[in-house]
Amino acid sequence: MDLKEKALALHAQWQGKFEITPRAPLHTREDLSLAYTPGVAEPCLKIRDCIDDSYRYTRRGNLVAVITDGTAILGLGDIGPEAGMPVMEGKCVLFKALAGVDAVPLCLKTKDVDEIVRTIVLLSGSFGGINLEDISAPRCFEIERKLKEQLKIPVFHDDQHGTAVVVLAALLNALRVVGKSLSQVRVCFSGAGAAGIAIARLLLAGGLKAFIMVDKDGIVYPGRPGMSKDLAEMAALSEASTAGTIADALVGADVFIGVSAPNIVTPDMIRTMRPGAVVFSMANPVPEIMPPLALEAGAAVVGSGRSDFANQINNVLVFPGMFRGALDVRASDINEPMKLAAAQALADLIAPHELSDTCIIPDALDPRVAPAIAKAVAQAARESGVARI
Amino acid sequence: MDLKEKALALHAQWQGKFEITPRAPLHTREDLSLAYTPGVAEPCLKIRDCIDDSYRYTRRGNLVAVITDGTAILGLGDIGPEAGMPVMEGKCVLFKALAGVDAVPLCLKTKDVDEIVRTIVLLSGSFGGINLEDISAPRCFEIERKLKEQLKIPVFHDDQHGTAVVVLAALLNALRVVGKSLSQVRVCFSGAGAAGIAIARLLLAGGLKAFIMVDKDGIVYPGRPGMSKDLAEMAALSEASTAGTIADALVGADVFIGVSAPNIVTPDMIRTMRPGAVVFSMANPVPEIMPPLALEAGAAVVGSGRSDFANQINNVLVFPGMFRGALDVRASDINEPMKLAAAQALADLIAPHELSDTCIIPDALDPRVAPAIAKAVAQAARESGVARI
Repeated sequence: MDLKEKALALHAQWQGKFEITPRAPLHTREDLSLAYTPGVAEPCLKIRDCIDDSYRYTRRGNLVAVITDGTAILGLGDIGPEAGMPVMEGKCVLFKALAGVDAVPLCLKTKDVDEIVRTIVLLSGSFGGINLEDISAPRCFEIERKLKEQLKIPVFHDDQHGTAVVVLAALLNALRVVGKSLSQVRVCFSGAGAAGIAIARLLLAGGLKAFIMVDKDGIVYPGRPGMSKDLAEMAALSEASTAGTIADALVGADVFIGVSAPNIVTPDMIRTMRPGAVVFSMANPVPEIMPPLALEAGAAVVGSGRSDFANQINNVLVFPGMFRGALDVRASDINEPMKLAAAQALADLIAPHELSDTCIIPDALDPRVAPAIAKAVAQAARESGVARI
Repeated sequence: MDLKEKALALHAQWQGKFEITPRAPLHTREDLSLAYTPGVAEPCLKIRDCIDDSYRYTRRGNLVAVITDGTAILGLGDIGPEAGMPVMEGKCVLFKALAGVDAVPLCLKTKDVDEIVRTIVLLSGSFGGINLEDISAPRCFEIERKLKEQLKIPVFHDDQHGTAVVVLAALLNALRVVGKSLSQVRVCFSGAGAAGIAIARLLLAGGLKAFIMVDKDGIVYPGRPGMSKDLAEMAALSEASTAGTIADALVGADVFIGVSAPNIVTPDMIRTMRPGAVVFSMANPVPEIMPPLALEAGAAVVGSGRSDFANQINNVLVFPGMFRGALDVRASDINEPMKLAAAQALADLIAPHELSDTCIIPDALDPRVAPAIAKAVAQAARESGVARI
């Protein structure tokens, strides 16, 4: 039985990857009168008088909603809300297993931005945080922006920011290996979807100065026809001035960061990069260039999204600890300082004596990861003024 | 420490009465590749091709949303969505403890009927059923009606139908005690909110012919000014023809069913009822007439909502088994035949030799209850054509 068949058989056996477990005993009449009527009226009245007491008397303070509209599920595209559910359930159990965060998977039967925003606002009193998942670009940007304006609980689009944090962490360590710094390198981004743009933004916040972005239509340059607002902003910040191909963009680059399409980068293109090149080829399941080919072509450090090569850059590393930290200090937002702190904490888990071209990022199931990120995120939330306790 | 203080202290200790537990192992890289990427793509694709496979590969087939807008929480009224959460959590853990149903508590920050309906429709792909809870009348009727029109999963407003089923069950047994039948008795209903109207409707479906309904403005009669659509329907079906008080309505009644207000029925009123009177005085926490007073005034069988008197009529008896049965056959609706079957199954759990004026209904935590109701409900769903498997 291959992995696909085994995964399907197991999903049929599990019949759902999560279940609800009571934390209150319900064996006797007294149990019932304490956890349910009439005793339950007491916490209700406390919360009526002070809504923040919902963090004290209900699960809210440890509870995140994992929400999708099914429009960008894995690499499968718009497969519908119900079909996105196995991914959401997987995310939810990773939240619990890795960081003790209770997460509820919800799929929404609409693609309308305002309707998605409104639905989440209406649900927000039940949760301590909102993890958006697998919502297609550019809608995901607008949805997240509007939610952040309206809600006082953290909102985090994992495909953007989880990916951005783990890429920044891996890049910080890769640059240590090759002896360069973020403020000095030139980066070529391939892919201008949710992940690509978010990675670029976080790297800029972390000190990056020079980059070019490429999408399926070539180099993203100021004035290119038909760009979204977010893409135009990227063009304006970049070094690009005219049209060109990915081959053009890679010439003289120090770093390649791909979240785009399979097999679009050739060994010859890698050979035009500067010495000590870092190549993160993260299209899934087939990367922009297979890691062995990039290494043969002279890349110094190579990472991908795959578990069968060294340096797997996997956003499973980020979201559990990110929300653990945010919930621990009841943060009202997940902001840039919290994301930068998470990336630094993740990078710092690789000790100097461990660091090498094949060891730039911890393993996805390394139990040190979530607590380290949570601690750094909570601290950054306090310092940036968004911690509420 | 009294019950109120103890309940509050326990809620603070629990910090939520439920949590999420993974059903899939997540210890190794292989676990991760099966429950999450890349293996998770397989069930996603199956569901994309056939939405009903969501019952096979996700938790949906065992998952109910318990949803409120916080407008009619217990007897506390409109205390807001967050403040309703302790009750919703209590409901959810009872679902699991009594019937193995996984239930997620959700509170909505709106009171607008159409917005509530739309939100639930958008969420419906995540769940196998919807349990509406503590939504004020008459909005609850319209919300439930609209949802039943739009959804192909069961929608059940527990304050209406759970209460109606348990009252019918208790009444069937009380009438056996006094040697009367539902089609022959005259019932006085006190209270014309969600519960009162739903009880009347189910009793009519079960064979009741003669009743009068009373609310805070007195007898509900055809042509009374200012009635809602639902109340006017009740007036038309009732025996009432002119205005009057609850005292007037009780004269010659066989049965009193109160879901209204404390201490509004006097012993003298009970004395005007027919011999073998059945009195269900269910206002919480203080009944329409305290059970000992009703018994002293000559009532033959007395029930209430309280656990400190005989015959506690508690809708905890109904909702777990009702959804267990509906989910087991993937019912597209919870209809009248299913509710009637649930009531009969609940009544039948009291064996003839056990039946007495102080034993008409099983205990709230009797482990036989949910399975018996589930079996009867599933059977009725099949016979009435709403079972989908």
